[in-house]
Amino acid sequence: MDLKDYLKNRCQLVDQTLETFLPAAGELPASLHDSMRYSVFAGGKRVRPVLMLAACETVGGDLNAALPAACAMELIHTYSLIHDDLPAMDDDDFRRGNPTNHKVYGEATAILAGDALLTEAFILLSACQQGGDPVARLRVIHEIAHASGSRGMVGGQIVDMESEGKGEIDLATLSYIHTHKTGALIRASVRAGAMLGGACEDSLAALTRYGDAIGLAFQIADDILDVEGTTEELGKDAGSDQARGKATYPALVGLEASKRRAQELVEMALDALSVFDERAEPLRAIASYIVKRKS
Amino acid sequence: MDLKDYLKNRCQLVDQTLETFLPAAGELPASLHDSMRYSVFAGGKRVRPVLMLAACETVGGDLNAALPAACAMELIHTYSLIHDDLPAMDDDDFRRGNPTNHKVYGEATAILAGDALLTEAFILLSACQQGGDPVARLRVIHEIAHASGSRGMVGGQIVDMESEGKGEIDLATLSYIHTHKTGALIRASVRAGAMLGGACEDSLAALTRYGDAIGLAFQIADDILDVEGTTEELGKDAGSDQARGKATYPALVGLEASKRRAQELVEMALDALSVFDERAEPLRAIASYIVKRKS
Repeated sequence: MDLKDYLKNRCQLVDQTLETFLPAAGELPASLHDSMRYSVFAGGKRVRPVLMLAACETVGGDLNAALPAACAMELIHTYSLIHDDLPAMDDDDFRRGNPTNHKVYGEATAILAGDALLTEAFILLSACQQGGDPVARLRVIHEIAHASGSRGMVGGQIVDMESEGKGEIDLATLSYIHTHKTGALIRASVRAGAMLGGACEDSLAALTRYGDAIGLAFQIADDILDVEGTTEELGKDAGSDQARGKATYPALVGLEASKRRAQELVEMALDALSVFDERAEPLRAIASYIVKRKS
Repeated sequence: MDLKDYLKNRCQLVDQTLETFLPAAGELPASLHDSMRYSVFAGGKRVRPVLMLAACETVGGDLNAALPAACAMELIHTYSLIHDDLPAMDDDDFRRGNPTNHKVYGEATAILAGDALLTEAFILLSACQQGGDPVARLRVIHEIAHASGSRGMVGGQIVDMESEGKGEIDLATLSYIHTHKTGALIRASVRAGAMLGGACEDSLAALTRYGDAIGLAFQIADDILDVEGTTEELGKDAGSDQARGKATYPALVGLEASKRRAQELVEMALDALSVFDERAEPLRAIASYIVKRKS
């Protein structure tokens, strides 16, 4: 399979669906809705939604069953970036080469746009038009909410923030940050896709192992890119993690060991997929791509 | 019935349940969980949860069916207060006589605590232990999410913020702010309680009229209190709305007309309840109390 074509197709599908679901540009209150849309359509790679759709198809489900939840996941990811960039948090002026939300709309609107995007995710997840087994849908809402909350992503963000500039942190803390701040949503994306595709418990367990492995691989690869990538490739300042004293894998265990660890995790992810047929090809290709990407 | 005893009893029930559901004090990340608890247990009157429980009982439901959703609503209300108080928003140092969340835990933690409380509401709403009809529960999640989002509470907050200090705004704008910023959650509390109590569509429609009327009455009464109340009674600066050029009902239509309007709305609310038996007594007492309260 051609991963590039596949990703392009799936991104378009997600973008079209987001376009339909989100309140229209200019709908009152216009500043709020424009600000929400600004960050949602700022060129994200849609990694989480694509993983959710691919996991759904891997277990034999129809991707349309997972499309609203896939979009909800992207809204949660987007809200977390908006709040992360705020002056009181990372204080970033640029994201993917564009001014961050608060630089364009102001801090108050950026806070509220983030709040509204998080809420919009649950509007989408619970909308009655979508059909599907209501028990499975409640389970998916719980999975996604848990992964996003104080025991998931937000928990990872606060530990990351509190560790910043503290000098050397230990591998346990770094691992907590990685598995919570980025890993939790990636794991939940894969699991929610499997649930909505009607996976049996064995398939769900296999895909959970896949999700955990690529979640960590993705973050280690990100840390490596921050060291090796160029600012042009990344759309943000290369070396910025290092500059602000952020804990990273290469800083803690070295660059070569980090690369080896990322490669091991990809192999673990592929191994977890060995129980599936050719419908798992996209998930296999994504796992390999994670450690090869340049941005 | 004795409303004071009733409210005390219900508040205790809500507080005990919140205590059980929220991550424990000191659970890692401790700063985040402590900050969430600080604002949840800061002496709120639990108006929204009490309304939800009372609506559930009015239609003959068991209040335990609505208890988790009632707590979820209080978490959403609390998150909105934390974010509202931030320096980039209203920049308030005190809330109910205590320092605001960001004054105690810092701005970044306050932002994340708000995010986590909003998310926690949906963890609670979707938790599988709770049983109940899954279709009704999805409908309740949708009702609450919609009321909290860009077409509900957050929409009201941004219009309120954008109107501040702009001089005279018209009644249509003020009405939008009131029905969205506070009215939407009150309406949703009453409706969700009815849904979880198994209300028929006619009962739901009657309770929706009740919720809309008391939601607006509550806000007008708040505006009146800001003019007439003392700082001691309110636990915040009396006249603070006026001082920051915030649009209020008394400023726009006068104090006497505001009082008349609040009284009319209470009568509309009581009229909507005329189809119910004595189980609606708490809702009747709450409606009357709204315009009589001193804080």
